[in-house]
Amino acid sequence: MKTLLFAREDISRIVAAVGFDRLMDDTICGLSEACNGFDSEAHSIPVRSGFSYNDEDSKGLVEWMPVIRYGDRVVIKLVGYHPDNPKKFRLPTVISTIMTFDTRTGHATNIVDGTFLTSLRTGAASAVASMVLAKPDSRVLGLIGAGAQSVTQLHAISRRFDLGEVLIFDTDVSACTTFADRAACAGVELPIEVLPMQEVLSAADILCTSTSIDVGCGPLFEDQAFVPGLHINAVGSDFPGKIELPLALLERSLVCPDFRAQAIAEGECQQLGENDIGPELTELVKEHDKYADYRDRTTVFDSTGWALEDLVMADIMTSLGDEIGVGRSIELECVGQDPKNPYGFIASQSKGLETLLSNVEHWA
Amino acid sequence: MKTLLFAREDISRIVAAVGFDRLMDDTICGLSEACNGFDSEAHSIPVRSGFSYNDEDSKGLVEWMPVIRYGDRVVIKLVGYHPDNPKKFRLPTVISTIMTFDTRTGHATNIVDGTFLTSLRTGAASAVASMVLAKPDSRVLGLIGAGAQSVTQLHAISRRFDLGEVLIFDTDVSACTTFADRAACAGVELPIEVLPMQEVLSAADILCTSTSIDVGCGPLFEDQAFVPGLHINAVGSDFPGKIELPLALLERSLVCPDFRAQAIAEGECQQLGENDIGPELTELVKEHDKYADYRDRTTVFDSTGWALEDLVMADIMTSLGDEIGVGRSIELECVGQDPKNPYGFIASQSKGLETLLSNVEHWA
Repeated sequence: MKTLLFAREDISRIVAAVGFDRLMDDTICGLSEACNGFDSEAHSIPVRSGFSYNDEDSKGLVEWMPVIRYGDRVVIKLVGYHPDNPKKFRLPTVISTIMTFDTRTGHATNIVDGTFLTSLRTGAASAVASMVLAKPDSRVLGLIGAGAQSVTQLHAISRRFDLGEVLIFDTDVSACTTFADRAACAGVELPIEVLPMQEVLSAADILCTSTSIDVGCGPLFEDQAFVPGLHINAVGSDFPGKIELPLALLERSLVCPDFRAQAIAEGECQQLGENDIGPELTELVKEHDKYADYRDRTTVFDSTGWALEDLVMADIMTSLGDEIGVGRSIELECVGQDPKNPYGFIASQSKGLETLLSNVEHWA
Repeated sequence: MKTLLFAREDISRIVAAVGFDRLMDDTICGLSEACNGFDSEAHSIPVRSGFSYNDEDSKGLVEWMPVIRYGDRVVIKLVGYHPDNPKKFRLPTVISTIMTFDTRTGHATNIVDGTFLTSLRTGAASAVASMVLAKPDSRVLGLIGAGAQSVTQLHAISRRFDLGEVLIFDTDVSACTTFADRAACAGVELPIEVLPMQEVLSAADILCTSTSIDVGCGPLFEDQAFVPGLHINAVGSDFPGKIELPLALLERSLVCPDFRAQAIAEGECQQLGENDIGPELTELVKEHDKYADYRDRTTVFDSTGWALEDLVMADIMTSLGDEIGVGRSIELECVGQDPKNPYGFIASQSKGLETLLSNVEHWA
């Protein structure tokens, strides 16, 4: 029984074949379609849960984000959030693995690294929300936070809006300094200006906040006058007590969560009553005409990260893997000829090298 | 960043190096030690949850079983239970994957197939419970159910008791017919007799029930006279409404769950009030002298499957992998030099083939 592995090398091969732009475009389209066709009866998506800890040596959390598409597959992302990773270990804050399972048998069909893909789909989700809620002629993108997430925010928004300039602020000056180089890695060649937060806030048509602000330390700024029709993608808030935006701003805006129940627990929606929360992303996409009037008003996409987005990524990897012939096939499960014999799997162990060599051939 | 993969080939290599008996012995010892040293403050183990479904094409469930050892690692097993697998797909009923994560960074340290290991540790758990609660001179092992789990039940018990004979019953005659061959695969060379259920029940010193009885169809048998001091390992009950043992038997026995909260939700303990439930496995092991008197009375180990057992298996694989030099190293995560650049991971993509070839060398 074959399990397809999409590890760093495999995803690199996909990128080499199709490029970052097509990957982002496919993600934006895939997510739009998934939202448009979303049938809540055909899926079950519980609010994620996990272990969080705040010790001297380990501060962060490991969570599981499961989704089932009934009669098809289960997708579970296992995701770590460790804000000290960049400084202490030169590792990304968010690291994750996506596994998919066939609901007919429970067989693990795919193991997919989620570290890059999570960043990609989080960017894509902001693009999808912005396409409904931001002014179509938005020219100035403001970024608060210059970490990994802000690069994919910029990349995604730049694929759907004719941006003229990018303004960025981060309390970490070195992150700002390197931002343009990282954006160039994604193929984004726009003028990027590092500015004080206040200047970013007052000039942006679309604003993305993606910071690692600590629990209890938000909001990032106070409510104030913004450019008319500002749309904000609030990406950083994803834990109880962690918020980025001021309540007054939320109260006078249309606030749309990706996943209402989770946004109430972990997102900007923590600050709001049930009745002050707008439509979810799926409804926004399905009823985009209905919400077109909001393009002239202040709107917020409360992006906590949703398992449906990971299901879309798993689908895209499978489909691109098929198209390009990428994805390593491994025999993960100890299964032999007789399903009732747990010890029978060792019979064909000598095939290992043979399989590996055929992979090499396939790769060469 | 390296992730160690223990797939079918790798686990086969470990078995080839140390044999099934040492693997079972290590598992029994590892689990005994883990129970003996278990500190509930140093771990968090939520009751597993998951998706269950009962459609025409897919009937079963996919669950996640997480455990954290604070300051060390998170272990999550993703497990499918699909009772039609053997007949429809020639696949085991239970298929699973274990992933481990470093709590300092969230990095995925291991991907381990859990299909064989789950069966192994479920057998080992019964051996650990039986060592405390069964008569030390138990000679007759009775097995109700002749599927995959019963093979590891037999193997495990045979490693700790001087068994003279094995009596087995299953409603599926063909499963009974092939049982001796499967037991031989595990290296168990005891006389095995297929008998009507009643005769198995009335002769066993230790009884293991591991059936796929449907929800609402239990118990398997009615209460009756057993051999004095009978110890039962009830392995099959692991879902709300699924039970194997009759209430009257439970009420007059010491019933010890592996994990109380889960056994109340899914195990034989569903049938009991809180006050009728005995000590958990960890307490049994820690206080084995205190429970020695129960060897002459009827006792039940209510084994629902516990995440600590999977943590033990992950530890054993890591340790044996180290000892023998087994476990394939893969670069799973898309991580580059700059943790703030999600697109930076492709830099070293050309190393793929090189890495693979060095693996081949390592294997040859």
